[in-house]
Amino acid sequence: MYTIKLLSKLLKHLCLPFLLIGMHVRSAQTDERQPPNFVIIFADDLGYGDLGVFGHPTIKTPNLDRMAHEGQKWTNFYAGASVCTPSRAALLTGRLPVRSGMASNKQRVLFPNSKNGLPADEITLAEQLKEVGYSTACIGKWHLGHKEQYLPTNNGFDYYFGVPYSNDMDKTGGQDYKEAAKEGFSAVKIEDYNVPLMRNTEIIERPVDQNTITKRYSEEAVSYIKKNKNKPFLVYLAHNLPHIPLFASKEFLGKSERGLYGDVVAEIDDGVGKIVAALKEEGLAENTIVVFTSDNGPWLPFETHGGSAGLLRAGKGTTWEGGMREPTIFWSPKKIKPTVITDLGSTMDLFTTFSKLAGAKIPDDRSIDGVDLSVTLFEKKESPRKNMFYYRGTDLYAVRLGDYKAHFITEGAYGQFGEREEHATAILYNVNEDPSEQFDIAGEHPEIIEQINGVVAQHRATLVRGIDMLAERE
Amino acid sequence: MYTIKLLSKLLKHLCLPFLLIGMHVRSAQTDERQPPNFVIIFADDLGYGDLGVFGHPTIKTPNLDRMAHEGQKWTNFYAGASVCTPSRAALLTGRLPVRSGMASNKQRVLFPNSKNGLPADEITLAEQLKEVGYSTACIGKWHLGHKEQYLPTNNGFDYYFGVPYSNDMDKTGGQDYKEAAKEGFSAVKIEDYNVPLMRNTEIIERPVDQNTITKRYSEEAVSYIKKNKNKPFLVYLAHNLPHIPLFASKEFLGKSERGLYGDVVAEIDDGVGKIVAALKEEGLAENTIVVFTSDNGPWLPFETHGGSAGLLRAGKGTTWEGGMREPTIFWSPKKIKPTVITDLGSTMDLFTTFSKLAGAKIPDDRSIDGVDLSVTLFEKKESPRKNMFYYRGTDLYAVRLGDYKAHFITEGAYGQFGEREEHATAILYNVNEDPSEQFDIAGEHPEIIEQINGVVAQHRATLVRGIDMLAERE
Repeated sequence: MYTIKLLSKLLKHLCLPFLLIGMHVRSAQTDERQPPNFVIIFADDLGYGDLGVFGHPTIKTPNLDRMAHEGQKWTNFYAGASVCTPSRAALLTGRLPVRSGMASNKQRVLFPNSKNGLPADEITLAEQLKEVGYSTACIGKWHLGHKEQYLPTNNGFDYYFGVPYSNDMDKTGGQDYKEAAKEGFSAVKIEDYNVPLMRNTEIIERPVDQNTITKRYSEEAVSYIKKNKNKPFLVYLAHNLPHIPLFASKEFLGKSERGLYGDVVAEIDDGVGKIVAALKEEGLAENTIVVFTSDNGPWLPFETHGGSAGLLRAGKGTTWEGGMREPTIFWSPKKIKPTVITDLGSTMDLFTTFSKLAGAKIPDDRSIDGVDLSVTLFEKKESPRKNMFYYRGTDLYAVRLGDYKAHFITEGAYGQFGEREEHATAILYNVNEDPSEQFDIAGEHPEIIEQINGVVAQHRATLVRGIDMLAERE
Repeated sequence: MYTIKLLSKLLKHLCLPFLLIGMHVRSAQTDERQPPNFVIIFADDLGYGDLGVFGHPTIKTPNLDRMAHEGQKWTNFYAGASVCTPSRAALLTGRLPVRSGMASNKQRVLFPNSKNGLPADEITLAEQLKEVGYSTACIGKWHLGHKEQYLPTNNGFDYYFGVPYSNDMDKTGGQDYKEAAKEGFSAVKIEDYNVPLMRNTEIIERPVDQNTITKRYSEEAVSYIKKNKNKPFLVYLAHNLPHIPLFASKEFLGKSERGLYGDVVAEIDDGVGKIVAALKEEGLAENTIVVFTSDNGPWLPFETHGGSAGLLRAGKGTTWEGGMREPTIFWSPKKIKPTVITDLGSTMDLFTTFSKLAGAKIPDDRSIDGVDLSVTLFEKKESPRKNMFYYRGTDLYAVRLGDYKAHFITEGAYGQFGEREEHATAILYNVNEDPSEQFDIAGEHPEIIEQINGVVAQHRATLVRGIDMLAERE
């Protein structure tokens, strides 16, 4: 018996290196050992409650609904921040933006006159995947620095097509958006937002025709997939919309019962459907992981031009659940086991999960906040993510640990949901039992506050804060 | 040519009576012309946002989610009132409760010492279907009169098994529920609610063991279906829960991340799954229409023991959307075309739709508020329902016409959401574009207010108010 065991162990040891080498062979997509392709579809300011399958009554998203049914709907999935720039930095680096310097208390996001961008020594998911032979494309909103050295093409992406920051920037005049929007669609003029459309490092259109931008982004993604099907690829498709100003192409304009906001989301959903169809046509679907999520919660002060966080509290700019929990769907036929996942996940986990699946080494010279979600995606096992840090700028406002969330500081955003308040004793919610954060149970659970305080102390002890890259403007 | 046409017309006229007779033949369920079976599953105080497919993050309802995917999810479907008794009267009679006298400004619902119940001259869906040969069962909460003459067995149901009113009635002592619930599950005692369980007209258990009542209701439904499969049947399964006090059987207790409320909804969902499985086993699924909905919105003051209306405003007891819009799913493989329906529907339409499908004559000696939803269910065509009247007691508070809802009176409920206020000029919302009823657009749309005023005038001109059956108590 002992001899057999020994022999089998010996054989394993002898074969393992060969097996590992075999796993790293890069080859045509027909090879079963081919690492998977990744398509990340990232909406802008889409609320937790703005997809059909996340409960919206009149926004129709049949493609995303189907993906949720065939794949995994994640109901406790978080962005790395509650506004654009830091949220995007978190997704691409797998790190809390406070580490990379992409969070600031002086400027919430980057602007067209910002001096800096994502530091060169930060490692993006694209750089990780390029290292192991992937083709990489960034399509859509970048918002991590618009100067050449900060653009996607200098951050691991072979190809870039998109608007380098928010679609409401470079405002050259015209009415206040909210006022114009109330007067109807024609009062909001594309020319009032002189934002550029770039291909790689060149400006190819300015102002970008925002009516067709959503449609063109999806088409670019489809076209990139078709052209790059012989190598594994990463497509990071970051829509500029439904961030205001809202625009939709003729095909969708005026069609949704939810109004212009619904038109926009329907057009994004339609693009998702086209991407999935292309993956199927090319025989790539079963070796591609598609994930859909959003950068932060809905921009509520824009009324019907902002989204809805559903039953979650508050929205964009806050550390309430409505600001950072995102409607998230993972889809990959055969690979991903269909179910609803209520365990924790974060956009930062895409860095770690996808790096590992691709065979790329996780950097060991820095703190990485992402965890590998593979066991949950492929085996429906418990998510390794147990906590979530809710930063506003560079201040830690709240921490979630399992079911519980402690707020140390609370603050509304954009004139809604209250002034900044520091809590001597943290407010505590069981956000799984009380998802709308209504019933403070701090008094009943001092032991949980204590436990969370421990997590905070540990986090703070090792935290190296990056130099503020958002503050300086020219 | 003319001769052929005439001949064909003549043949049609000759054959039509025979065809019609053929359609009314009652026979074994194998006969394709067999009219469909109906299973109505009616939850109590379940909120619009309390199912997975309606956006709840931690209440798991895999069976209902699947039915929504395979069938139709209705997102603008209304109960006939915002509290139990009138809502149930509306469903079973197809009439606004103000007509039947089952609405009152003196008592919101019937109590164990109420004198009356549903008037004998009201015609229930069960009476309609019994007339054309159906077996009919009422399982669960009745709440339309507990005296023998008012019980289900005197209202068209062959069989009754259930609690004749709410599960929080007949309170014999013990703590206030909210206080007890805060102390944990064991502090809420079944014995404090001395509610009876009845079979037909006999009390068989008192107090009913509420721990197992949800499970037993589903089992009764399954057993009734199996025993009555040779004739068309109606099963009206009206759960007592998730109305407080909350109880769940051992199998579900403590399992949901949403707490006890989630345990209860999961147990209801499990029962739905068992009913669907039984229909499939017996080969009845394709000739059965299953509909799931709720009697009114969530009872919000009970905090985590009350549900959530998702993104809708307010809850039970109010004429805000959260009080009367219900999470609704229609399912019938092959018959019902899978999609999301955003058109209007109401529980009152079940009376008309199911009567017509069964070949029963719609009463023509009274006003019926139900419309036939068949074209929407089977052909995805526009719903014939264009408006909805929101009564509180016997007062008309609001009217919906298409996308728009005008509030003439607004009022919160149970100490939440504001005092009664009559509006000289109605408040107007586009509830499809603004489902949370936040942005009053009355000033911009006087023409719509006028149109709705016309609908109200027409409604009032022909309204015959029933004698108040709820006010008198013994």
